[in-house]
Amino acid sequence: MFLSDLTWPAVEAYLQHKDGIIIPIGSTEQHGPTGAIGTDAMLAEMIARQVGDLTQAMVGPVLSIGIAEHHMAFPGTLSLRPTTLIALITDYIASLAHHGFRHFYFVNGHGGNIATLRAAFSEIQSKQRQSAVDYHICCTFINWYDVEGVVALRRKYYGEREGRHATPSEIAVVQYLRSDLIHSEPLPPPVPYQGEIQGAKDFREKYPDGRIAAYSSMANPEQGKVLFDTAVKGIVKQVNQFFVG
Amino acid sequence: MFLSDLTWPAVEAYLQHKDGIIIPIGSTEQHGPTGAIGTDAMLAEMIARQVGDLTQAMVGPVLSIGIAEHHMAFPGTLSLRPTTLIALITDYIASLAHHGFRHFYFVNGHGGNIATLRAAFSEIQSKQRQSAVDYHICCTFINWYDVEGVVALRRKYYGEREGRHATPSEIAVVQYLRSDLIHSEPLPPPVPYQGEIQGAKDFREKYPDGRIAAYSSMANPEQGKVLFDTAVKGIVKQVNQFFVG
Amino acid sequence: MFLSDLTWPAVEAYLQHKDGIIIPIGSTEQHGPTGAIGTDAMLAEMIARQVGDLTQAMVGPVLSIGIAEHHMAFPGTLSLRPTTLIALITDYIASLAHHGFRHFYFVNGHGGNIATLRAAFSEIQSKQRQSAVDYHICCTFINWYDVEGVVALRRKYYGEREGRHATPSEIAVVQYLRSDLIHSEPLPPPVPYQGEIQGAKDFREKYPDGRIAAYSSMANPEQGKVLFDTAVKGIVKQVNQFFVG
Amino acid sequence: MFLSDLTWPAVEAYLQHKDGIIIPIGSTEQHGPTGAIGTDAMLAEMIARQVGDLTQAMVGPVLSIGIAEHHMAFPGTLSLRPTTLIALITDYIASLAHHGFRHFYFVNGHGGNIATLRAAFSEIQSKQRQSAVDYHICCTFINWYDVEGVVALRRKYYGEREGRHATPSEIAVVQYLRSDLIHSEPLPPPVPYQGEIQGAKDFREKYPDGRIAAYSSMANPEQGKVLFDTAVKGIVKQVNQFFVG
Amino acid sequence: MFLSDLTWPAVEAYLQHKDGIIIPIGSTEQHGPTGAIGTDAMLAEMIARQVGDLTQAMVGPVLSIGIAEHHMAFPGTLSLRPTTLIALITDYIASLAHHGFRHFYFVNGHGGNIATLRAAFSEIQSKQRQSAVDYHICCTFINWYDVEGVVALRRKYYGEREGRHATPSEIAVVQYLRSDLIHSEPLPPPVPYQGEIQGAKDFREKYPDGRIAAYSSMANPEQGKVLFDTAVKGIVKQVNQFFVG
Amino acid sequence: MFLSDLTWPAVEAYLQHKDGIIIPIGSTEQHGPTGAIGTDAMLAEMIARQVGDLTQAMVGPVLSIGIAEHHMAFPGTLSLRPTTLIALITDYIASLAHHGFRHFYFVNGHGGNIATLRAAFSEIQSKQRQSAVDYHICCTFINWYDVEGVVALRRKYYGEREGRHATPSEIAVVQYLRSDLIHSEPLPPPVPYQGEIQGAKDFREKYPDGRIAAYSSMANPEQGKVLFDTAVKGIVKQVNQFFVG
Repeated sequence: MFLSDLTWPAVEAYLQHKDGIIIPIGSTEQHGPTGAIGTDAMLAEMIARQVGDLTQAMVGPVLSIGIAEHHMAFPGTLSLRPTTLIALITDYIASLAHHGFRHFYFVNGHGGNIATLRAAFSEIQSKQRQSAVDYHICCTFINWYDVEGVVALRRKYYGEREGRHATPSEIAVVQYLRSDLIHSEPLPPPVPYQGEIQGAKDFREKYPDGRIAAYSSMANPEQGKVLFDTAVKGIVKQVNQFFVG
Repeated sequence: MFLSDLTWPAVEAYLQHKDGIIIPIGSTEQHGPTGAIGTDAMLAEMIARQVGDLTQAMVGPVLSIGIAEHHMAFPGTLSLRPTTLIALITDYIASLAHHGFRHFYFVNGHGGNIATLRAAFSEIQSKQRQSAVDYHICCTFINWYDVEGVVALRRKYYGEREGRHATPSEIAVVQYLRSDLIHSEPLPPPVPYQGEIQGAKDFREKYPDGRIAAYSSMANPEQGKVLFDTAVKGIVKQVNQFFVG
Repeated sequence: MFLSDLTWPAVEAYLQHKDGIIIPIGSTEQHGPTGAIGTDAMLAEMIARQVGDLTQAMVGPVLSIGIAEHHMAFPGTLSLRPTTLIALITDYIASLAHHGFRHFYFVNGHGGNIATLRAAFSEIQSKQRQSAVDYHICCTFINWYDVEGVVALRRKYYGEREGRHATPSEIAVVQYLRSDLIHSEPLPPPVPYQGEIQGAKDFREKYPDGRIAAYSSMANPEQGKVLFDTAVKGIVKQVNQFFVG
Repeated sequence: MFLSDLTWPAVEAYLQHKDGIIIPIGSTEQHGPTGAIGTDAMLAEMIARQVGDLTQAMVGPVLSIGIAEHHMAFPGTLSLRPTTLIALITDYIASLAHHGFRHFYFVNGHGGNIATLRAAFSEIQSKQRQSAVDYHICCTFINWYDVEGVVALRRKYYGEREGRHATPSEIAVVQYLRSDLIHSEPLPPPVPYQGEIQGAKDFREKYPDGRIAAYSSMANPEQGKVLFDTAVKGIVKQVNQFFVG
Repeated sequence: MFLSDLTWPAVEAYLQHKDGIIIPIGSTEQHGPTGAIGTDAMLAEMIARQVGDLTQAMVGPVLSIGIAEHHMAFPGTLSLRPTTLIALITDYIASLAHHGFRHFYFVNGHGGNIATLRAAFSEIQSKQRQSAVDYHICCTFINWYDVEGVVALRRKYYGEREGRHATPSEIAVVQYLRSDLIHSEPLPPPVPYQGEIQGAKDFREKYPDGRIAAYSSMANPEQGKVLFDTAVKGIVKQVNQFFVG
Repeated sequence: MFLSDLTWPAVEAYLQHKDGIIIPIGSTEQHGPTGAIGTDAMLAEMIARQVGDLTQAMVGPVLSIGIAEHHMAFPGTLSLRPTTLIALITDYIASLAHHGFRHFYFVNGHGGNIATLRAAFSEIQSKQRQSAVDYHICCTFINWYDVEGVVALRRKYYGEREGRHATPSEIAVVQYLRSDLIHSEPLPPPVPYQGEIQGAKDFREKYPDGRIAAYSSMANPEQGKVLFDTAVKGIVKQVNQFFVG
């Protein structure tokens, strides 16, 4: 049930017996020489939708721009100030809460969003306290790549070569979902992990092609399918628990 | 050329000879008893992409949540505070400007966004002036339904029955693009236009099913196709002019 | 009834049977080589006061600085960031709403303010929704130069020579209201309209003396009086309707 | 030289040999049973203009709404949040600084504005430091009623009966400047000063007619003239020093 | 009773019969060649704690960074934007008000904070009014160096040599409280007061060692003790009155 | 080297050969029936200072109020909105960067701050990019309780009984540092961990005395000393690496 595809009477009907919604959030940022800039947003959105289909839960429109300041030395990357994303999430949730939604489950596709997501949840709670709103909402999120089974698969398929950015696992899922985006040219080994990054310039100097220790070219759509299905399965279970909580 | 589908080297290559980008902006709001909540965002995005294909211009990710406070009495509607949307557009453009983009052409699908789009452009100019940024950017927008040929078609197809919200023209284009979203049930005549609306409650009291004077059920996908093609054609011409400007 | 001239008991008495207020909003920006920088604010204020006198409606203090980023290459122009003007209008209305005012009718003297005015109205509605304020307010605005009869007069008096900025019609009304501000030196023909402006620098390069296609020197105080009276008359009718709405 | 009355070439000419401007700031708030709500704004504006005439200095448009939260239990009072007024002053000064103004002299009519004025000056300095703007500006303000000679006159004319709000001195100056606003009805003695006020409700409970220890009805226009002339004279001297500083 | 040292049940017990709290606020800024950068924060905190001990009143954690833009040309100085400090004080008080505190008494150690403290109090009141919070709070502050007996002592001990920044009185109290911070090297006479300062650069140019007309080296810990005790005694009396108010 | 205790010439001298600073950040929040409300701030500050002593590195004043929304149902807890803390950290770092500091190492005492710290670092980077500041800064943080040796000790001393809030380890370190704050009364076993918390009310309902699965009363000052020394030792090593980086 994708909110954007429904009519308002359908949403009204949904709210008569449910109050949960799944919200995908990704990023629009470089993913190495062969990865799509929209990787994180695509994955969050597609996984969220599939989970929504399997759980009969509502799925909201994707937040496709996240916190990607570190990637800003690579053309095409978009990044919000954290305060902007906090405002955006606040308004998104406030709109839904106005209609009666009470459980908000974010499917996140980008590690850089985690801090701001958490900060946004605190901001919303502070704001509600200070403005004496009388309803109570529950917010949580999951990173699709941290789902238990997915972690195991990533280790099994790629081991150390999974790396930290433009990973073969995320590239693989995109290949499964979007065969038009498969780049099959071979890539040289990536630069190994160099420790904490300090800003966008430092990132590009350390990792000139955008990959961090990740053998993106190990990706294939078959593994992508298994990763996708495993992520969906794991999240379905959690969503079902969260929405009755 | 959809930014999200590209790799960063592809964007870097693009920027060596072009500096324009098309940005679709829509809304997530009720569109009457048969219209999809995501109508405005879908149309902006699909038209923008088609224009991008025909002009070889870059297309950025859609801003799918807009200013829809008036529709907030209908479940499913999402609305941003104008200050939030201003911050969002500011960061979006600042990211792209950092990479070298200079011409920003918004394809807008929702009348309620116009004021905040214009305000955002002023805010960006003020901010650049106050922070002494040294580059100059150009921003503009078009409402797809105001393209010359489209206006003529809307009048020809629906006359007065086009109405003002959940119009048969926008429903028709969705039907053309998304046959899975066609609702063919007949609808009673809509409430005629009642003058300026004062807030969400007033809207729903005056127009209980969400349509304003619009005979949504006159829509059909064939007319949708003509409307879509006409909008695209008109915008292609404008984009080509704007990007050389 | 000008709020600033009244005592608080007089306002308290007014609120016992009325809840409407007229608020003039203008701009402080260049108006060509002979136009006063305060033109837009003066006109909005004087028209609003006259309307207030004729309708026995309260008139608030003028907001004399607006959104004039485009004019910032001409010395003397003042411009607010749209977010600042939104905050200002929000506080202005919140103060009045606290006392019991419910109908807010803005008389606007500057096209550049329109977008931010609309955005401010949405912002106020969002804020009220998010903070669960329990009263309902109605906001609207009119541009004095768009009043029906005024449009006709502008066309009749100046035709194409009315132009787009520093127009003879606005200069004429200032001449009628402030004979001390009449500049009678002849002016060369203005630069014709060159299409959309991109920022302050572009404005001054295209229109070096600040006029856009406007034959400011056609203005005379006699026509100014007719324009003024016609604007007032048109607005009186609208205010009367709005305040009972 | 009132900025709003000038043309932009006149401002440009002024800036070729001067860089100072006088900015009046007042408040729109109750002034007891006989005082005009706009008292503070009128006085600041009229004094500033007279000073401008005598010093050939530029005078900007009045900021007529200030910080008057304490007065909000009296209908007609308008009050800004301090953060709004800070933003407004920041934009006002940034606009003028863009044109080349460097010395900003505020004539203040309301004690409640002092804190926010000072905060605004700090905010502007912080902002300039953080954004690496390369010019240096000087800001100061005076409260007209604190001018040396004015203090002496207030003591001489009214002694203890001057009080603290809706004082006979401010009422007197309004009477001198605006004979149409003279209320000559006698008033009972005011409530004496009761110590620090805690919010708007507390104010009205302690001082039901809005006056604080002030015998407003002692005011007369003759004393108003002397007060006005003395304030102007004192400020002229200070402005002349400040603008060469 | 220092809040940070207590357990939450102890605070809960306190709130059953009291609702007042003392909040120290200082600054982290240069205090001349021999004064500690933390002087203002230390003094505010130590005085507040001693007052808390004597009055059995709760004392909150110190706000040690204030508004010190003028001192920013001296390394080690920290300064907040006034809008940041307003937000900080707002959240601090809102947290305490949520628990039931209603009387907030700030002990201030830095003149530069006064304006923003007052602005923060207004901001809080505006915010409460606009969000319809139903409780009423009382806020006030004292500058420890303005306590009646302290003013007399400063005059008696140092006369004109007290000066305006890095004064012997504040240095003396630090010497009394922190003998490890005594610098006994002799200092040349300070630069005399030069009139209003315009920004950080101007400050350092006028007063190269950071002192303004202050003979810091006159300080001794014995006088520091008398000053401290006198400040505490004066504030104890005021706190007792304020908390029953 | 504690910044607050130094004179400005001492800071100037420091900056001639170093550019690093350690900044402690904690929280003021309930720590169960026997833990001090200031636990997190004390620990961060004391550890940071000890590290500063051993590394000859500058230590800034503690940020003692953090993000503690979850604890707001327990009296005495203070919590900032994340946007407030972001502004505060931004100004703190901007002040230091103005003087020449370039490496900022936060010692964090509270898990709830992590997200906002990270968000603040992104915000600062975005802001610098958008305002074209020309220097580059490096920010990082460590949670003292996550230092390698500390994690081992916590497991060794308390095993599962360490729990998640008001843990014996943090209580123990306070006991070591502040013997006056030792509460030796026995406590009943804590409520075991119940899964993710949804807001302040939920927290107190699930964990009525504020402890989450933590046997606070296992704490003793001897273990506190070992924990403290181990944390300091681990952080010293990291600071030395970071500051040369």
